[in-house]
Amino acid sequence: MIISKEPHLTDTQLREIEALVAEYRCTIHPIHGAHRSIYAIIGDETSELMFNRLEGLDYVDKVDRVESIYKLMDIRSELARHRVVIGGHTLGHGPFIAAGQCTIDPKNPHYFYETAQAVKEAGAHALRGGVWKPRTTPHSFQGDNRSMDILVEARSRCGLPVVTEVMDEEQLRIAVDAAVDVIQIGTRNALNYSLLKQVGKLTAGKKCAVLLKRARNMGPIDEFISAAEYIVAGGNPNVVLCPRGTMPGLDIYRNHPDESVTPLLKKKTWAPVVADPSHSVGKAEFVPACALAALIYGADGIIVESHCEPAKGIGDDPKQALNPVTLRRLIQDAGEIWKIRHR
Amino acid sequence: MIISKEPHLTDTQLREIEALVAEYRCTIHPIHGAHRSIYAIIGDETSELMFNRLEGLDYVDKVDRVESIYKLMDIRSELARHRVVIGGHTLGHGPFIAAGQCTIDPKNPHYFYETAQAVKEAGAHALRGGVWKPRTTPHSFQGDNRSMDILVEARSRCGLPVVTEVMDEEQLRIAVDAAVDVIQIGTRNALNYSLLKQVGKLTAGKKCAVLLKRARNMGPIDEFISAAEYIVAGGNPNVVLCPRGTMPGLDIYRNHPDESVTPLLKKKTWAPVVADPSHSVGKAEFVPACALAALIYGADGIIVESHCEPAKGIGDDPKQALNPVTLRRLIQDAGEIWKIRHR
Amino acid sequence: MIISKEPHLTDTQLREIEALVAEYRCTIHPIHGAHRSIYAIIGDETSELMFNRLEGLDYVDKVDRVESIYKLMDIRSELARHRVVIGGHTLGHGPFIAAGQCTIDPKNPHYFYETAQAVKEAGAHALRGGVWKPRTTPHSFQGDNRSMDILVEARSRCGLPVVTEVMDEEQLRIAVDAAVDVIQIGTRNALNYSLLKQVGKLTAGKKCAVLLKRARNMGPIDEFISAAEYIVAGGNPNVVLCPRGTMPGLDIYRNHPDESVTPLLKKKTWAPVVADPSHSVGKAEFVPACALAALIYGADGIIVESHCEPAKGIGDDPKQALNPVTLRRLIQDAGEIWKIRHR
Amino acid sequence: MIISKEPHLTDTQLREIEALVAEYRCTIHPIHGAHRSIYAIIGDETSELMFNRLEGLDYVDKVDRVESIYKLMDIRSELARHRVVIGGHTLGHGPFIAAGQCTIDPKNPHYFYETAQAVKEAGAHALRGGVWKPRTTPHSFQGDNRSMDILVEARSRCGLPVVTEVMDEEQLRIAVDAAVDVIQIGTRNALNYSLLKQVGKLTAGKKCAVLLKRARNMGPIDEFISAAEYIVAGGNPNVVLCPRGTMPGLDIYRNHPDESVTPLLKKKTWAPVVADPSHSVGKAEFVPACALAALIYGADGIIVESHCEPAKGIGDDPKQALNPVTLRRLIQDAGEIWKIRHR
Repeated sequence: MIISKEPHLTDTQLREIEALVAEYRCTIHPIHGAHRSIYAIIGDETSELMFNRLEGLDYVDKVDRVESIYKLMDIRSELARHRVVIGGHTLGHGPFIAAGQCTIDPKNPHYFYETAQAVKEAGAHALRGGVWKPRTTPHSFQGDNRSMDILVEARSRCGLPVVTEVMDEEQLRIAVDAAVDVIQIGTRNALNYSLLKQVGKLTAGKKCAVLLKRARNMGPIDEFISAAEYIVAGGNPNVVLCPRGTMPGLDIYRNHPDESVTPLLKKKTWAPVVADPSHSVGKAEFVPACALAALIYGADGIIVESHCEPAKGIGDDPKQALNPVTLRRLIQDAGEIWKIRHR
Repeated sequence: MIISKEPHLTDTQLREIEALVAEYRCTIHPIHGAHRSIYAIIGDETSELMFNRLEGLDYVDKVDRVESIYKLMDIRSELARHRVVIGGHTLGHGPFIAAGQCTIDPKNPHYFYETAQAVKEAGAHALRGGVWKPRTTPHSFQGDNRSMDILVEARSRCGLPVVTEVMDEEQLRIAVDAAVDVIQIGTRNALNYSLLKQVGKLTAGKKCAVLLKRARNMGPIDEFISAAEYIVAGGNPNVVLCPRGTMPGLDIYRNHPDESVTPLLKKKTWAPVVADPSHSVGKAEFVPACALAALIYGADGIIVESHCEPAKGIGDDPKQALNPVTLRRLIQDAGEIWKIRHR
Repeated sequence: MIISKEPHLTDTQLREIEALVAEYRCTIHPIHGAHRSIYAIIGDETSELMFNRLEGLDYVDKVDRVESIYKLMDIRSELARHRVVIGGHTLGHGPFIAAGQCTIDPKNPHYFYETAQAVKEAGAHALRGGVWKPRTTPHSFQGDNRSMDILVEARSRCGLPVVTEVMDEEQLRIAVDAAVDVIQIGTRNALNYSLLKQVGKLTAGKKCAVLLKRARNMGPIDEFISAAEYIVAGGNPNVVLCPRGTMPGLDIYRNHPDESVTPLLKKKTWAPVVADPSHSVGKAEFVPACALAALIYGADGIIVESHCEPAKGIGDDPKQALNPVTLRRLIQDAGEIWKIRHR
Repeated sequence: MIISKEPHLTDTQLREIEALVAEYRCTIHPIHGAHRSIYAIIGDETSELMFNRLEGLDYVDKVDRVESIYKLMDIRSELARHRVVIGGHTLGHGPFIAAGQCTIDPKNPHYFYETAQAVKEAGAHALRGGVWKPRTTPHSFQGDNRSMDILVEARSRCGLPVVTEVMDEEQLRIAVDAAVDVIQIGTRNALNYSLLKQVGKLTAGKKCAVLLKRARNMGPIDEFISAAEYIVAGGNPNVVLCPRGTMPGLDIYRNHPDESVTPLLKKKTWAPVVADPSHSVGKAEFVPACALAALIYGADGIIVESHCEPAKGIGDDPKQALNPVTLRRLIQDAGEIWKIRHR
């Protein structure tokens, strides 16, 4: 849909536009209104370049796109029947709960083993544990390859599938070699397309899901869904979308909670949604309400930070992690909320 | 600076806090006011973990950090005397202008050669040319390794140093092998710390500058400066900070122009600032004003998209690129603005 | 708390600051840290002017305020024991539901009478009906004084207390004369302090509550609470705080839902919170989830747009209003959510 | 332009839509594309209600408006030839500079008389002086009617036209009686339509301009222009649009500078633009660059806070006001920037 600056295009302008869209096998259909004309683009309206070229024309004010720019993630695609399964839990069948430490402390592995046990007992379906961490400054602790062994050991002890974040190909290969069940892509790498492609490729055909956090800005959600398209196009349809708050924060919250984006995602894509309330609000006392709100909005699950003894944690854990008692209560509440939402 | 939830900490709470900060070799200094007390942290107040642990305490409402979390980028660091030089132009000595195509079209190299010539004649100091491109969807053109040869050929023809964006280690190695003069890190990878470390390491000791775009959200600028710290800590002090607009956009602008952040950067860091008006506004007609505004705000230069024939461009060029006539006039205006600003 | 630009203030600077704060009966307490000093302000730290003057000093980088700028709204004030009662329902005792039309259509009063009946039967506690409307353009329907008679008639028919928005003193006087039970101040007038003062004054001592919508931007919540302080200071403590989404919107939502602000309000003020999901999301299909999320976050109630036949409504009703069936189900769900939240 | 949820409307749906728009004397023109149809609305596409009703239909996903919702402010209106003149200065002919105190101190009138003289000597065209002030808390100084006498006296002494903000009808009447040359509507009242109507009505036919600040959020600029339409429709075409920064602030700036909105305003409306850099950045040291940037972006002038002795000011003056030396230099720079911009 083309809106011109003047009420009507001149004949020369119209011919130029027609020639341009013809290169993309589209045609123009002018509609003459009372005060102005608009110009519909007929055809496969998905070429970014066509849009960019049209918007570059001096006499064009705005060009609107009607069709979706992703194919595989679209709710109308063949993949809409695909179900993501993590450790036996099919996403969409009851609230999926992943819980665990933001950061594994390689010097004190026993905390993580205790956390794993507590998380399991509280009723969670997956164990979260950060091996490597994106830190604002290079002078902070960046994680440690040895933590991967701790993660694997914890999995074998508690029997839950594990989730960990990777930030580059080297980490990705280590995680894939360790058969990590859910690879997490963090918000800072949410649009790191090179990494997303690699993830799709290296996990293709494996029993491995990918949890993609939303980039922490208020861009259109099509961009979020399109980022996941990179992973699926790379070969792995087991993607999970994860809202985690947008910047700037809402007053003292670390971010502006955005679990409310869930119904919009659900209208456009078949991919399950698992929200992250811990980073949305950034402080343990506010996490449970945010988690339950996500389920009310239709999320398929939540991923929360939890630690057997939060004050002994490293990274964000002292600030954000739930203790086992709070986690257990949250999981019970989640079950009841699910019933109300899905009855 | 610790603010408690209650007007005053209890003795037990105070002792717990004192023990905690003692682990980081800090002490607590309580200040008793009329209605409440506050608690200053004395010592090297730069441990993220200490802050996270303090914020995790039930009875603590807020913890403020006074000291900067970066060391090398700080305006008070030894590096403050360092000057970044690109192709003979010392940043800070007259307006630095980088111009060229968003995207090199590998099927039509002659456009880029013409652009290079036009950019040179217009008076620019560096030639921009995108070899690889981050695209919202995997189904769009992603760039082409062959374009690197075109970039190198253009450099030898026009004699200008060249700027190109890399998104992963493989591209980085190709760019370094080709002795690209300025490596650009785009906004989507602005917080891709793995890549920033690699960039610092692989360009260390080389005559190579790194242009770091600001992440497109409204996070604190300390995060922006800290990201550059990764590059400098990796071994290359030739960093250039590049505001490029924040999301969400200002009405129909692609982004909300943020060249106004320049004076804030200049107060905190010695690193030069080169603004990107093309992505800030996203449409050629609005670019020159935005470019000049950046210089008024104290930027050391600008990087603008320019194409010998914008309508024949690919990627964002049809929409954003200046034609050679507009570029030439912009460069002249930039010189006059510089005189007013720096007299 | 004063942060200077240089690591330490000079003696002259310190003396100047001491003299300045002394005018407000405050003193300065310097704290000498490892690399820099900070300067605590001791005394009644609530004068805006003192803060502004301190921030105006050349050598001062930042001044932080510790104490709250409102007195009556503060959770520690005497008023914390006050309860707001609307039509027999004490806020805080079970979910309060106000529902009804965005706009009363003066040409078709029967719709409003039907809506009133439907709202009552669905189980709501108050009837919302817009008599006057703030419209983006002067050429749109602005409401009609005759609608006040319709509102009053509907009240006597259904027996529910009524809520209506006023935008100026003339409308306020008409509403007070009609003994409207809840005066609503809309988001565009949320910081119209002249009106807030008048509202406090003219409803003082009356059985009239005031529902104050949050200004639709991401300002600090202290500003929101302080705006309510105008009403309470004017003489009416029956204020209700109403989050209604912030701008810019979240993708296609009219606003960015902000019911998540509720726990932050609850920590600072005793005033009840009633959220407006209709304006947060702006489209009927998304309203129920947003309404329930507000209750999960601890809101005392919700105000939703509802119409006996949405398609026949005017103003925002065709787009936003719930039909009676959906409203009834929402109210039932609200009761169950309340039980989970408050058990 | 109607986008349906399904690729195509059913016949029944289409007939319903046709009937609906027929009520507004519009017709529907379907356009059948490769994968989906879109539906153009032909006629006078300006009824808000028609749009709201269309958006309320279950099967409609989105409705786009092509025509402008304002008539008088439109750059294509008859009024486009109207020129706003303030105290002999025609807006658009050289940079218009209004300067003066945020707040007049009624206890110390001599400061304002000195400021008036300094502002005049520095070369400004109008004198700003706040008589009444919107304050975040009711416990702060709210202004004083006596300051109006000081403002009038200052005008007669220095000979410059005066600008002052009004927040309600009572203040407006006092200002009109005093023949204030420019009535300012502040950002908190920018969408207080009752006040805007009154302003238009009470200043109609008078030699009085109205400076309308932009609401401090990132709403569409059509809303800003439409607010001014209330004033013009009320009877006074002498409106001036004033960008003043949006919330949330850019790092430590009070707001996010938005002078860059000027070119967008200039494309849509004939009304002159006078930017307010003082509130955009909120601290004197950053004001001059922001002021000059506004002129670069095409603003017709600036309104800056200035005080003969900033530290002695009240309200925001200690923080934001320029001293006379800085103001003089800014006005000189403004003249040079104007020449570059308008050559």
